Formats: sequence, structure tokens, C-alpha cells
Amino acid sequence: MAALFRQMTVCGVGLIGGSLALIAKREGLVERVVGLGRTQKNLDVALERGIIDEATRDPLTAARSADLVMLAVPVRTMPATLAAMMPALPPHAVITDVGSVKGWVVRELEPLLGPRMALVGVHPVAGKETTGAAAADEGLFAGRLTIVTPSARSTPQALDAIERLWRATGSRAERMTPEEHDQILAHASHLPQMVATVLAAALAGERVGGREAAAYGAGGLRDTTRIAASSAEMWRDIVLTNRDAIVAALARFRLTLDQLERAIGAGDVERFEEVFNRGRAMREALK
Amino acid sequence: MAALFRQMTVCGVGLIGGSLALIAKREGLVERVVGLGRTQKNLDVALERGIIDEATRDPLTAARSADLVMLAVPVRTMPATLAAMMPALPPHAVITDVGSVKGWVVRELEPLLGPRMALVGVHPVAGKETTGAAAADEGLFAGRLTIVTPSARSTPQALDAIERLWRATGSRAERMTPEEHDQILAHASHLPQMVATVLAAALAGERVGGREAAAYGAGGLRDTTRIAASSAEMWRDIVLTNRDAIVAALARFRLTLDQLERAIGAGDVERFEEVFNRGRAMREALK
Repeated sequence: MAALFRQMTVCGVGLIGGSLALIAKREGLVERVVGLGRTQKNLDVALERGIIDEATRDPLTAARSADLVMLAVPVRTMPATLAAMMPALPPHAVITDVGSVKGWVVRELEPLLGPRMALVGVHPVAGKETTGAAAADEGLFAGRLTIVTPSARSTPQALDAIERLWRATGSRAERMTPEEHDQILAHASHLPQMVATVLAAALAGERVGGREAAAYGAGGLRDTTRIAASSAEMWRDIVLTNRDAIVAALARFRLTLDQLERAIGAGDVERFEEVFNRGRAMREALK
Repeated sequence: MAALFRQMTVCGVGLIGGSLALIAKREGLVERVVGLGRTQKNLDVALERGIIDEATRDPLTAARSADLVMLAVPVRTMPATLAAMMPALPPHAVITDVGSVKGWVVRELEPLLGPRMALVGVHPVAGKETTGAAAADEGLFAGRLTIVTPSARSTPQALDAIERLWRATGSRAERMTPEEHDQILAHASHLPQMVATVLAAALAGERVGGREAAAYGAGGLRDTTRIAASSAEMWRDIVLTNRDAIVAALARFRLTLDQLERAIGAGDVERFEEVFNRGRAMREALK
């Protein structure tokens, strides 16, 4: 395939940015990858693994000659990262990101763009508990979903190029508005994270007769709390930038919690089974 | 090893009862196993797999010559099952069970016992999503925990024999009171189940702009809701028989939910990170 971009600058050469860079190079979709990072150690790993061709910790060096900027840093860091690169970016650069929140990112990034730049918001719905360039993996996105959120500054050409890039990962690209994305993910991703976190935090330190209750949990407890081990930095940014949608999803959760609690308190078998079977049917459909 | 019992009658030849019967026979701890069941089809599977030597759907036939009765039916069915067997049980029979709730079981079963019978409550903390004799598995309990809850009618001899039986499964036996068991499991097992069920039920039918939100979840949603697919029959019995402890565990969960919701609503980063990191530390310790 002919290259789509001459130079992709990846800001944050971690699991997502690093994996995408590996694929883009393998598929010949970019001629050259520059990595912008905070720590030399991670950049060195990325260089050694051939994820990037050049490493820098300087935004202006990273910006020079970049016709594609891939923002793969925590969401709230994106505006400052782009702003620091702006003075050296070519006028036609395409800006894209891989943030888990889209409305806030689009609102914050669009005003920073030069008049002939384009922005395409993307969220690859994939992840692992591992982080850093060492975890980058060409198979990470295969068979998964990549959500693309066209906005006022997404040109048809930029959209097309970014979608071609993501399809090369083996993922399926689906378009929706940034607002739809944020509401959907608030329910399908951010709510489960909050629930797992609350469950784990509620059990922390809970003791019965000198025994730590959580130590007596089996696979159910482990599965239900697995994502509670996620990065606080990433999730702090998500809740701060998608607050309204997360608050609404939590309210929906609370309504169902109230129903189940009332049913249990009253020994109301019929109502208990109604809630239980609603959850069961949803989970069966998910498989 | 010399046999501990001449005849073990397993009431409910499912995953737990069937697995235990396989091990007890393999280890020579029982000379003969009789299976009491509701459906001939499942009993036929148990016979074919050599899990039981004789199958019956009649409680009196099952009771005759049983010096060990293993109750492995849903918790609330245990009293009626034992009562139906009583007229034909030998006077020195040892009664044991594998229920997920212990206080209620002990309270309900003890008054049914003949004067020279003994009761030993047991909860093997193991499980799979599969059910029935077809799922029985000699490795099910290996490396897991089996909680034994001595009560007024547990004789030292019966306790010793039941613990020897369970140690033969490769699990670790730990004693606690029925009340301690119920409080600990309300937190470590029943609460995670309720939370997973509420999350799944809350997401059922949630649509955004014509799209089903849950369809956009990744591994986090799948893990967090996995146990929502569990059996309603089993869980109905658990919530009805361990209601107070579950209500208390739900109250603890709700307190932490309130903290997190207030932190998110107020954009209070410090408080959010406090709750998040408390959950994270608990989950890391669980590994």
C-alpha cells in the first residue's frame, strides 16, 4: 500500500500509540515515525523495538515535518501537548487522537488548529492492563472496534486516511458523533470501571472477627474487581472530561441498585428475580 | 485410606455434589455412593460417569443405609430434603451440606436431626458457570478453600471425618462459626454478585441514538458482569437466607458509591483519587 503519511509523530509511545506505530510501519502506511515522550527510558525501548525511527522529548523537534500527529497521551494532557507543537507543525498537518473521551477533546483541540489543519477524533475500544512501549502489540486491535468521531474540523480526506490507517489494524471502524460516543462509553466502559472501583474500595479493610473478608472471595470477586487495578491517572482524566455522562450512567445504576435492595430487604422474590433475570439476559446477550 | 463411611448419599448430583462423590470414591473414603435427584436424565449421566453406584428419586430409598448424607441441593430445599429422608435414615447418620449460607442451614437442619445424628456445615468456596453431573470434575476443589462451620450438633468425630473427606479434594479446610461465615461471604461473594447483577440489569436495553450501549463494551464490561449470568434459583435462596448480612454489605457499598459520586459531581480530584487508589490497592493485594 502507498504511504498515507510521510511522518507520523506519536505523542505518548505507550500501549496504544506504540501498537499503532508498529502496524503503520509494517503496512507501509507511514514512511517514518517520530516518538515524543516524557521519559528517555520508554523512548529507548520504543527505538530498540523498532516502534519509532526517532525519539525526542522536545515538542518542537517532534512537530517538525509531521504530516500526522497521533496524540496518545492522557486526555487532559492533549491540548497542552498539541499547543507546544503548534509553532513547528507543517500547515497541512492532520491531528488525531486515541482518547477515551471525545467531546471534550474535540472542543479543546479544534480552537488550537491552524486554518488548514484537520482533526479526526478516534477511540480504539481495546486495552490491556499493561502499559508502555514494552507492551505494544501488533495484534492489539484485531477484531476490535475503533470509533471515529467526525467533527467540524474533520475534512473528508483526513477522515479517509485515518480510517484506512485504523482498518489496517484489523479493527472495524464505526463513525458516530463525539456526544454519542461519550454517552455510550459512559455506560459501556466508564460505569463498569466506577462500579468495580467502588466494590473494591468498599471491601478494602473490611474485617469480620479478625479475618479479612476479601481474602475469602473466589473467581467472582476477582473478575468483578479486575479493572479496579487500572491507572488512576487515566481514569481521573476520563471522569473530569466526561463528567455529565458518567453522572447520568451512575444515576441509572443507582435506580437499579435501589430496586434490588428494596426487593432483598422486603424478601420480595418476584421483584428480585425480575432484576436478576434482566441482568442475566443482558449478560447472556453479551457473549 | 480406610473408608470413612459405608454409604454416602448425595442429594443433588450436580457440579459440587458430583465432584465430591468422584473424589470420595477415587480415594476410597466411601464404599458406595447413592445419588438422590429430581431428574432421571441427570442421574443417568451420573451413573454412566461412575459418579454414583445407585440412583433414585425417592428420599426414603436414598436414606436407607446412609451413614453420610451430603446435601448439595439449593439451600432452601435442604430442610425438606432432609425431612423427607428422616424416617429411613440410620440413627447415627452424619448430615453435611455444601450450601453457600451457613447460619440459616444450621438453624433449620439441627431441629430435624435424630438424637444420635450429627451435623457438619460446609461451604466449598469453588464454582464454575456449568452445572449438572456432566460438569463434575475431580480437580474442582484443588487449591481452593473449604469452610467448615462447627455448630451445637457437630460431634468431634463427625467434624474430623468431614474434614478428612474435604482435605482429600486438595482444598484447605478452615473452621469458623456459621455467623462469621455468612458475614464474610456476604462481602466477598454475595455483594460482588449483587453488584454485577445490578450493573448488567442497569445496562439492559440502554440505547443511545439507536445504538445499544452494552454492545460497545470491551473486556472490562465482560469481566465485571460475568457472574451476572449465574443461576437465579441459587441466588434467590442465598439472598432469602442471608438477608441481613447482604443488606449490611450493600450499605457499605452504597457509602463508597456516595463518596465516589460526590467526588465526580464536584470535580474533586483528590477525593476521587483517594477512592480510586483504595480500590486499586485492594485489587492489587487480591492477586
